[in-house]
Amino acid sequence: MKIFSLEEINKLDKRYRTNLINCLSGLKGLNLIGTRNKAGQTNLAIFNSVIHLGAHPPLMGFIQRPNSVDRHTLENIQETSFFTINSVTEEIHKQAHQTAARYERSESEFGETSLESVSLDDFHAPFVAKSPLKIGLECVDIIPIPANGTQLVVGEVKLIQLDEKFLKEDGFLSLHDQNIVGGTGIDSYLSTKEIARYSYAKPDSPIEIITN
Amino acid sequence: MKIFSLEEINKLDKRYRTNLINCLSGLKGLNLIGTRNKAGQTNLAIFNSVIHLGAHPPLMGFIQRPNSVDRHTLENIQETSFFTINSVTEEIHKQAHQTAARYERSESEFGETSLESVSLDDFHAPFVAKSPLKIGLECVDIIPIPANGTQLVVGEVKLIQLDEKFLKEDGFLSLHDQNIVGGTGIDSYLSTKEIARYSYAKPDSPIEIITN
Repeated sequence: MKIFSLEEINKLDKRYRTNLINCLSGLKGLNLIGTRNKAGQTNLAIFNSVIHLGAHPPLMGFIQRPNSVDRHTLENIQETSFFTINSVTEEIHKQAHQTAARYERSESEFGETSLESVSLDDFHAPFVAKSPLKIGLECVDIIPIPANGTQLVVGEVKLIQLDEKFLKEDGFLSLHDQNIVGGTGIDSYLSTKEIARYSYAKPDSPIEIITN
Repeated sequence: MKIFSLEEINKLDKRYRTNLINCLSGLKGLNLIGTRNKAGQTNLAIFNSVIHLGAHPPLMGFIQRPNSVDRHTLENIQETSFFTINSVTEEIHKQAHQTAARYERSESEFGETSLESVSLDDFHAPFVAKSPLKIGLECVDIIPIPANGTQLVVGEVKLIQLDEKFLKEDGFLSLHDQNIVGGTGIDSYLSTKEIARYSYAKPDSPIEIITN
């Protein structure tokens, strides 16, 4: 087993360090964030930092990096408040990866990557037609993280479109059955298989497998 | 396809809503966070909200829920500043799930779940012996998220122990080859398989598969 100290980490080659540190947090969810500015120009970008913040009210967040050359996603959210989070399946994962390219402001990643957009219920921001799980959110806060100049963008869920076939009786939505992918680091895409769902852990009783 | 509006989401049964909203962010990393208070009492808890915040300086964060009956992890971090993030493999995933049980303050989840602890380089907080990826961090910030009273705990990576066998030439650390699991929602555990790693996306050239 190898040990890296902070001193050693800071001496690593930049690209090596970026790859390594990005792998530490474990498996990541991958999502496409869709926005539209006031002039109607759409933007779509892949993020590996979307997190659950709470169920009541339903809140989700993502991390916006500082000094990112392309901050069209954040700019559009600041201008309009709305954004969408769209799942990435095996079918569209290469197109999703391609949205990370630095397109010009006037180019939409929807067109450039041939990912069709779709509107739902007059929601301002565009959804990805092929994503089986589509979430419309309104930004409620943008919180600075002073340690490195990143920001946590917080959104309240306003709308969810999903395929009922994968929704269990207790509200659990099976993502692996829909071929929704995950990732490691900044460039690895993963498919998943369920091991099991387990009952709520209690101090003095064994956990049980949930079947449904 | 089914659409839920915010109004419908807020009317859902609490447990159903918790399950559904927790599934929206996609695949999650699962990690065990280890702490030790000043009196030497250790604590270990599973979290599905650990995120990468930045590579230089190396920063990671996790979300602490409000009003959580058990906030031993946060209390210990506030008291000592140090915590560890430990990967969850298929081998130990049931024990990791069991750490979520509400043990008394005087009971350590290490002992209660038979997950052996280990010390590294005199680091204050304990590591999980069986985790192949062990990270020691010092808390540098605790940021309130006013929208729901959660907090983002920010830590700087001080130490990494990993198995070199899974470290690629470019710094990428393969987690799937180490049977490190992920999750969906609050209770589903997933194994993963790599589809591919892809080259950095550029506007006018096709992405390529990285092999190493």
